[in-house]
Amino acid sequence: MTKTRIRTKTTRTRAKALRTRAPSRSAGRNRRSVETTLEELKHRLREIGDLDAAGALLGWDQATYMPPGGAPARARQGAILRRLSHERLVDPALGRLIDELLPHADGLSYDTDDASLIRVARRDFEKAIKVPPDFVARANALRSASFDAWTRARPANDFATMLPFLERNLELSREYADFFRPYDHIADPLIDDADEGMTTASVRTLFAGLRSALVPMVHAISEQAPTDDSCLHGVFAEATQLDFSRTIAERMGYDLQRGRLDTTHHPFCTKFSIGDVRITTRVYESDIGQALFSTLHETGHALYEQGVSAALEGTPLGYGTSAGVHESQSRLWENVVARSRKFWQHFYPLLRKAFPDRFGPVALDTFYRAVNKVERSLIRTEADEVTYNLHIMLRFDLELQMLDGRLPVKDLPEAWREGMRADLGLVPPDDRDGCLQDVHWCSGAIGGAFHSYTIGNVLSAQFYAAAIEAHPEIPGEIEQGRLGTLHGWLSDRIYRHGRKYQPSELVKRATGRLMNTEPYLSYLHTKFGELYRMPPLQAAGVAASPVL
Amino acid sequence: MTKTRIRTKTTRTRAKALRTRAPSRSAGRNRRSVETTLEELKHRLREIGDLDAAGALLGWDQATYMPPGGAPARARQGAILRRLSHERLVDPALGRLIDELLPHADGLSYDTDDASLIRVARRDFEKAIKVPPDFVARANALRSASFDAWTRARPANDFATMLPFLERNLELSREYADFFRPYDHIADPLIDDADEGMTTASVRTLFAGLRSALVPMVHAISEQAPTDDSCLHGVFAEATQLDFSRTIAERMGYDLQRGRLDTTHHPFCTKFSIGDVRITTRVYESDIGQALFSTLHETGHALYEQGVSAALEGTPLGYGTSAGVHESQSRLWENVVARSRKFWQHFYPLLRKAFPDRFGPVALDTFYRAVNKVERSLIRTEADEVTYNLHIMLRFDLELQMLDGRLPVKDLPEAWREGMRADLGLVPPDDRDGCLQDVHWCSGAIGGAFHSYTIGNVLSAQFYAAAIEAHPEIPGEIEQGRLGTLHGWLSDRIYRHGRKYQPSELVKRATGRLMNTEPYLSYLHTKFGELYRMPPLQAAGVAASPVL
Repeated sequence: MTKTRIRTKTTRTRAKALRTRAPSRSAGRNRRSVETTLEELKHRLREIGDLDAAGALLGWDQATYMPPGGAPARARQGAILRRLSHERLVDPALGRLIDELLPHADGLSYDTDDASLIRVARRDFEKAIKVPPDFVARANALRSASFDAWTRARPANDFATMLPFLERNLELSREYADFFRPYDHIADPLIDDADEGMTTASVRTLFAGLRSALVPMVHAISEQAPTDDSCLHGVFAEATQLDFSRTIAERMGYDLQRGRLDTTHHPFCTKFSIGDVRITTRVYESDIGQALFSTLHETGHALYEQGVSAALEGTPLGYGTSAGVHESQSRLWENVVARSRKFWQHFYPLLRKAFPDRFGPVALDTFYRAVNKVERSLIRTEADEVTYNLHIMLRFDLELQMLDGRLPVKDLPEAWREGMRADLGLVPPDDRDGCLQDVHWCSGAIGGAFHSYTIGNVLSAQFYAAAIEAHPEIPGEIEQGRLGTLHGWLSDRIYRHGRKYQPSELVKRATGRLMNTEPYLSYLHTKFGELYRMPPLQAAGVAASPVL
Repeated sequence: MTKTRIRTKTTRTRAKALRTRAPSRSAGRNRRSVETTLEELKHRLREIGDLDAAGALLGWDQATYMPPGGAPARARQGAILRRLSHERLVDPALGRLIDELLPHADGLSYDTDDASLIRVARRDFEKAIKVPPDFVARANALRSASFDAWTRARPANDFATMLPFLERNLELSREYADFFRPYDHIADPLIDDADEGMTTASVRTLFAGLRSALVPMVHAISEQAPTDDSCLHGVFAEATQLDFSRTIAERMGYDLQRGRLDTTHHPFCTKFSIGDVRITTRVYESDIGQALFSTLHETGHALYEQGVSAALEGTPLGYGTSAGVHESQSRLWENVVARSRKFWQHFYPLLRKAFPDRFGPVALDTFYRAVNKVERSLIRTEADEVTYNLHIMLRFDLELQMLDGRLPVKDLPEAWREGMRADLGLVPPDDRDGCLQDVHWCSGAIGGAFHSYTIGNVLSAQFYAAAIEAHPEIPGEIEQGRLGTLHGWLSDRIYRHGRKYQPSELVKRATGRLMNTEPYLSYLHTKFGELYRMPPLQAAGVAASPVL
């Protein structure tokens, strides 16, 4: 359930020297000269990409195989790679190259690789140079110290220790946002970093529609007898869990010649090149759901990254377009596909074969209900599809309040309890399972991190609905374990474009519509309406929620 | 049996601009200013070290876990890290800092960390700037192409394809050597790169003494009935082999909190920091000797690197001092210790417990003889302790002849066959198991690579003899599985000093004597004289061979 570590190309810094005025020679340049300039731009961007990829490998290794003694030097090694990459990203010479190429880009079709490259490189550059280098250094240092404190404070349920860190993280987020004035809301630049083009207002609209539909659903389900998911708990050989998860990932289209699966504490997906997109998972011997669904979640991220056009490799276009669209793919494969009844009609016999003692006596329907159990709970990362978004909205509300000054950080624990009571009808017994549970705020980012999870949920259903509309045979194929048509549609409409299009453009191009919550609410209502007694869908909330 | 990938700090390049004259302000500098200069020097050197370590991680990953699709981008990623490190290594500003610090170093005791750092950094810098950057780029490119060709040419037994590569590699080695004129022999600069202070002449003297003693030994042993080593072959569960090897490595003192063991094709040891020194091994289900002794060989390298003083971390002093001294540690632990009867008196019961079906019926003496079987063979990496050095000397002779023009590369296959016949009485049926068997010449280095293996053998016995002299209780402790006294002596006399002392200084300080072959020949004669009937040791050859 964790977000991918794929880089979205927004970096918080500014050139030492302001970019100097671009020379206006471009008009007089001949064809050869434009090609040379474009080659130089690509060369510079590829170097930045290669440094970032090397840094990403350092991170992957730290999360998988690095022995404990490696940590101090690893921090230094990662820092120098980040610094070298960043120096190149804000180099005024890069800005001059981009400026020189603008007239050339104007003459190209919007969709071409080169026009897109120049357009996106320019946006990245303009953004990067707004942030002063000393801020970047301070932010990195605080992030490390804060994360380090959190690793001890959370187990100790020690909010007092985290308070000064949270206050400084908040201050840093506000300072960062101010580099991008003017804005309508202070959270806007933070949201834009993760999901270009979205704003506090558009997320609020989206969330308001969702909340009005979800709260009654959760309320209705909570009044019913709890689902029995005991079949997912017991003793499951770890190697078999990994083998089975890997097999399903491959069946979804994950190419292990260009990827691999390892274990870690907090699952993630990372990309070193189009030929090397790795995922990680965690395996609990007593709970098969963890490894299985974490793997398939990360597989969704990996399918996106493996599917980016090879022509975009080594450029800033060679990644998924935004955090929200990325999350839509992890959710689509993990939830829409791999928690569907049709999917398990094909794959449950294979699961039974892998664990004959455990699943031999368990009916398909029992298993299907277990993996779709809805239950109000305290921990976001363990939440089901229906309640999950309420966890996100609580965090989004609280971080807006902190950012715009309505909520002092010291009052966060009480506000958290109040919010949980209101939305989920539960109150955490302590801060460990309350406002200290997530790493995000505690490692330097207050604002801009949580909303993408729910965007991902919303888009997962919208993309799936569009795929079905184009290929009504998809559900029948899934029932036969054939996932290629769906994968092909997603590759063609989403994956191959990388960062060519902003999220809103991509959604419109892929689905023919603006982003809206109707497909998602309809998906939830249909699926969980079959599993639980449900109130009728609040149609008003649905219809009124196109947000992009 | 492969050499460690630990970097010895000799790099083949030169500054773009020649180093400018150092300002002569140093005399007037106050204490604070020297400290600042020293800090800046350390900071620059640490950055170089961090970039090298990041590059080393890319290499480790490529040899262990990287999926096949990752190769093209990985080559690019490694290249940029090498380039950035190298630019910093030959930066004239680094040379100026070193020059400014020379008067300070003169005022310090030779043994201090700071005096040693300035001394070694200066030597590295002076060496690095002698090599032009365009040469470094050409050498890297040829090395990759040549290695790539070899991976296909060797299995195909295709010397004709390799011939032009070998000719160009030879040309490159000669060109490189010429940057270091004047020299007595063209191989001198190549040998000095691996083992600072040694020369063609000193290696020739060493090898002549060895050969005159070894050839009669091999001849005598070859006339006797072959040793039965069938107990090492069969079916050994791979996971159990790894577990057992890891256990022994830990008993030798390898700290797994600061290291790890993985599998690969060509075992190596690599260091990312003093807290992260990793080894790799290969496991053959049918041959337990491979995993076991490869692991213990690499453990020797790792003990050296883990034992470098923490105060030297992040500086060019923070590694083992030379290829030969490094190899002495792998050979000492693999051969002198782990192929001794006393060692297995303690550990054989543990091996039996790990593989009761295989070793239950096998007597200790049978196992001991099997792991010390002497047999003339075609392949260097599979050779035993007695014949191994003859393989090395053949290569050393041939590369000197190629370098000084006596042997055209096209005649190499025939010269190889002739040399094998003369020294080992065997002739390879093809070039695959003849002159194409090793990667070294085929990947860009003709000269300077092989001799260190034999230096390592020679020093392994000399160091061990000195340890025994200081602590006569060591053999008795090994018999009880206690390896701490030996490890402690090696740490104190060798490991902790890193690159502070050149090989010859280190040998003299550690053993009280110059490097000489007497302990090694005496070790071989005693050990294998008990296993095989042997001619008396040619005392003249032994006594006449102090070479450093």
